[in-house]
Amino acid sequence: MSTGRIYNFNAGPAALPLPVLEKIQSELLDFGGSGMSIMEISHRSALFEGVINDAISRCRRLLHVGDAYEILFLQGGASTQFAMIPMNLLPRGRSADYVNTGAWATKAIREVRIQGKTLTIAASSEDRNFAYIPQNIRFSPDAAYVHITSNNTIKGTQWAGFPDTGGIPLIADMSSDIMSRPFDISPFGLVYAGAQKNIGPAGVCMVIIRKDMLERVPEELPTMLRYTTYAEKNSLYNTPPSMAIYAVGLVLEWLEDTIGGLDAMAELNEKKAGTLYAAMDASDFYRPTADMDSRSRMNVTFRLPSEELEDRFVAEALAHGFGGLKGHRSVGGCRASIYNATGMDAVTALTEFMAEFEQKNG
Amino acid sequence: MSTGRIYNFNAGPAALPLPVLEKIQSELLDFGGSGMSIMEISHRSALFEGVINDAISRCRRLLHVGDAYEILFLQGGASTQFAMIPMNLLPRGRSADYVNTGAWATKAIREVRIQGKTLTIAASSEDRNFAYIPQNIRFSPDAAYVHITSNNTIKGTQWAGFPDTGGIPLIADMSSDIMSRPFDISPFGLVYAGAQKNIGPAGVCMVIIRKDMLERVPEELPTMLRYTTYAEKNSLYNTPPSMAIYAVGLVLEWLEDTIGGLDAMAELNEKKAGTLYAAMDASDFYRPTADMDSRSRMNVTFRLPSEELEDRFVAEALAHGFGGLKGHRSVGGCRASIYNATGMDAVTALTEFMAEFEQKNG
Repeated sequence: MSTGRIYNFNAGPAALPLPVLEKIQSELLDFGGSGMSIMEISHRSALFEGVINDAISRCRRLLHVGDAYEILFLQGGASTQFAMIPMNLLPRGRSADYVNTGAWATKAIREVRIQGKTLTIAASSEDRNFAYIPQNIRFSPDAAYVHITSNNTIKGTQWAGFPDTGGIPLIADMSSDIMSRPFDISPFGLVYAGAQKNIGPAGVCMVIIRKDMLERVPEELPTMLRYTTYAEKNSLYNTPPSMAIYAVGLVLEWLEDTIGGLDAMAELNEKKAGTLYAAMDASDFYRPTADMDSRSRMNVTFRLPSEELEDRFVAEALAHGFGGLKGHRSVGGCRASIYNATGMDAVTALTEFMAEFEQKNG
Repeated sequence: MSTGRIYNFNAGPAALPLPVLEKIQSELLDFGGSGMSIMEISHRSALFEGVINDAISRCRRLLHVGDAYEILFLQGGASTQFAMIPMNLLPRGRSADYVNTGAWATKAIREVRIQGKTLTIAASSEDRNFAYIPQNIRFSPDAAYVHITSNNTIKGTQWAGFPDTGGIPLIADMSSDIMSRPFDISPFGLVYAGAQKNIGPAGVCMVIIRKDMLERVPEELPTMLRYTTYAEKNSLYNTPPSMAIYAVGLVLEWLEDTIGGLDAMAELNEKKAGTLYAAMDASDFYRPTADMDSRSRMNVTFRLPSEELEDRFVAEALAHGFGGLKGHRSVGGCRASIYNATGMDAVTALTEFMAEFEQKNG
């Protein structure tokens, strides 16, 4: 840990790998010998084309995504995708299946309804405050697509594996676990992820779309809301969020070249989450909120015996250099977000602090 | 000029003030003593609220914008605004007036038509390849709004003053000249500007909207496409492009505290543009393309006696440390973009280089 830096457990925007930040810092006044900052170069320059194409190539290699898919960079975050997906991919007269596993899925569902389009809630875990991932779901055989949220940042749940949709294109909001583990892209029609949790700073959203899905895009949509606009111009129809794309590229470079790819990353993430959950399972003081088979490897949500103790825990942790442990304002409690860039050192230090805090307050 | 940096005449993304880049660099690993990068802090933290509120306050002071207006930060660039403006502010059954002064205005007009809404081209300079700004325009008395492009990056023209619309709300795309000069906000219903020319890096679009305009926003629009969503949540409904907003704040700080505000900035910009146009007017070799009364203070477009000479000029200039002098790919020729952050030193050096080049090739 560099001098002055804290252990960052923020839920997003979240920790970035220190070598990535140091590289951004070192070349901030002169990118690639251009005599300009990355923020000052033209998005039409060969230099920036190198940046965006490198990010795309690394994404393809890391996730084993072939030519059947386009990799796009959009703005507006996952929240804009909630609306663009039904706009582009849900024709009137058809219906889509949504699985409701928490606040973000609920927002995605609301955007379909705002457009007056038809959907089915194929499954929901709302009955137990979204503490689990529904299993054995029966999807509508004629659904235009099935939408899921692969990891639920607020409720601390995650799909351990993805559901079998019987060939219906799967669409996943992977904002909070993309690039945290390998997965088979082939059942997916579209995967999207706001960058600010696992792959970069806020301000860019990665969309991986299967080319056959692009055939559904209606002509009459506003230009900036059509996936085809981005696919046809390599995400350079208009000025892209170039600094954010550059940072995503550096994070993917770190993942590939320093960590060693997604198998190695997943192993590390398992170890981090396993350590934290094991410490809590061995205690009556810290209680994880998610069902055991649905626990997130990214967002570890837990409660202490009282809200007063939770407040004291978060405050004392911060004083000891552990940031971001407060649960989402909508649910309270505590949460340790341990995305890719939060290392095992941070988790080890946190479990030690948690043991000490329990001893003093338990 | 810092070692290794070039004179940057890019049209956008464009030059940023060197002190701003240096400040971003110096605090990139530890923002405000948080132990985190600006890219790693929560958008819900007091620290980030300070950042966004400071940017808004500076914008209000610089442009003399009072409480009758909201200042918002959106994503998707001006290109998304082309669609959001008619979506939000042009009810079906009414019509809007558009003035067509070039490529960007043409795109804004196209987005109204894509939505099947009604507009009138109140004036156009297409008859002479957009080389001038139309004067004495008669607007439709019942127009929902009048849309103009205050500065035309590609054609090198700029409104010297804004037209009298007789009380109809004026809407302006000010992407390429916002904060370059003071103006009276009161006739404007909405002003928008992609940041990447005069006020920051790519990835954020500033929208200044008069509060009465918000009453027109239809309920049934997607959440992320309603201006009200941003107005009600201080642009923090979802994760904003925090790094870009932070950089905009620093540019506005530089404008206010180092330059001394928009009167001083406008004077400097007049001097820069005046020097460049005067040098060309004194020569038969360099020919400005815009009509004299419509010349832009931001984008100086000009031709040389032949395309071969233009290519040689751009290449030799680059070799001498002058970047970004190629005209837009759609029109050819040469262009020197001299936004706020490109200093008088750069303009002086360029005019000297131009004189030498003319002597050798004229």
